[in-house]
Amino acid sequence: MNSFQKLVKQNRSCRRFDNHHKIDPQTLEELVDLARHCASAGNKQPLKYILSTSKQKNDQIFSCLGWAAYLTDWKGPEKAEQPTAYIVVMGDKTVADNFWCDHGIAAQTILLGARAQGLAGCMFGSIHIKRLADFLHIDDHLEVKLVIALGKPAETIIIDEVDANGDIRYFRDENQVHHVPKRKLSDLIVSTW
Amino acid sequence: MNSFQKLVKQNRSCRRFDNHHKIDPQTLEELVDLARHCASAGNKQPLKYILSTSKQKNDQIFSCLGWAAYLTDWKGPEKAEQPTAYIVVMGDKTVADNFWCDHGIAAQTILLGARAQGLAGCMFGSIHIKRLADFLHIDDHLEVKLVIALGKPAETIIIDEVDANGDIRYFRDENQVHHVPKRKLSDLIVSTW
Repeated sequence: MNSFQKLVKQNRSCRRFDNHHKIDPQTLEELVDLARHCASAGNKQPLKYILSTSKQKNDQIFSCLGWAAYLTDWKGPEKAEQPTAYIVVMGDKTVADNFWCDHGIAAQTILLGARAQGLAGCMFGSIHIKRLADFLHIDDHLEVKLVIALGKPAETIIIDEVDANGDIRYFRDENQVHHVPKRKLSDLIVSTW
Repeated sequence: MNSFQKLVKQNRSCRRFDNHHKIDPQTLEELVDLARHCASAGNKQPLKYILSTSKQKNDQIFSCLGWAAYLTDWKGPEKAEQPTAYIVVMGDKTVADNFWCDHGIAAQTILLGARAQGLAGCMFGSIHIKRLADFLHIDDHLEVKLVIALGKPAETIIIDEVDANGDIRYFRDENQVHHVPKRKLSDLIVSTW
């Protein structure tokens, strides 16, 4: 438990990477294999994946993502800090008509697996889907649910407690440390029986 | 990575438990604390939790759950094999109007955390919500997303490869071993760039 607890706490959404550190396709396959072993609503397993470690495709995918909505003066990492791999998580509409929270289960498992080997990443729900579908030749029967960006982390991220005003917006301090306010445990538990 | 991989593979949806093994409320709080450290869309953290280790409430929660849809001649575990704890995962509509896949991220983390300490569990999306809300006094602003049943596992679960017919329904063999057909990795990866 202790080591898993540590892993969860280390697993922060990371948006700046060491772009020199390359990731091989086999690493992405191993991460998807973790997702393959996860629970799926009704065991339908409707999720499909596109993997990218190619520089050209990575650039294209990058251009489809909305980076860090709360950092309004930051449009995303510069070249040297961009992700070196992506996993696109899609729901196959020929398999199921509702994907429930399968993509959350899968994406979290992929990110924990990445973190366990010293990588880090970020889930994106803010995606220019039409553009992405063009770039990656995504068929209409596949619904893009999330894009996971991956790389070797190159930023420091700290969890703070949400302040009295309840402001949950993350921010960067003067040293470029990224702060993420999280609610208190006691604010999340409604009742205990 | 290896030990995390092992944890993910051990973390099977479990539906039969040793009902003599009690779980204390603090264990549930620690599991929710793991979920508290997870990614949340826009960092809004709209999820709220109800915890139960009480025999009376557990019985009530049990009566609200749809157990193992594919095991048509099994209505759920008998008394001696029922879960000894529950975590109800809800979205707070005063915090967000869409919970995206936050509950998938949180529930998977909770189950991996449970598995890391020798417990096991199962996510339920098939819930008699009105009944559950009555039993647990759940306010209208909280939308029930999942119920997680927990306990000490008392069943053997094996992963099989999906057969040529593509049948994904889990089943129990003559020795009461639970088999879960999972799709092949190569069937999940659409393309690699």
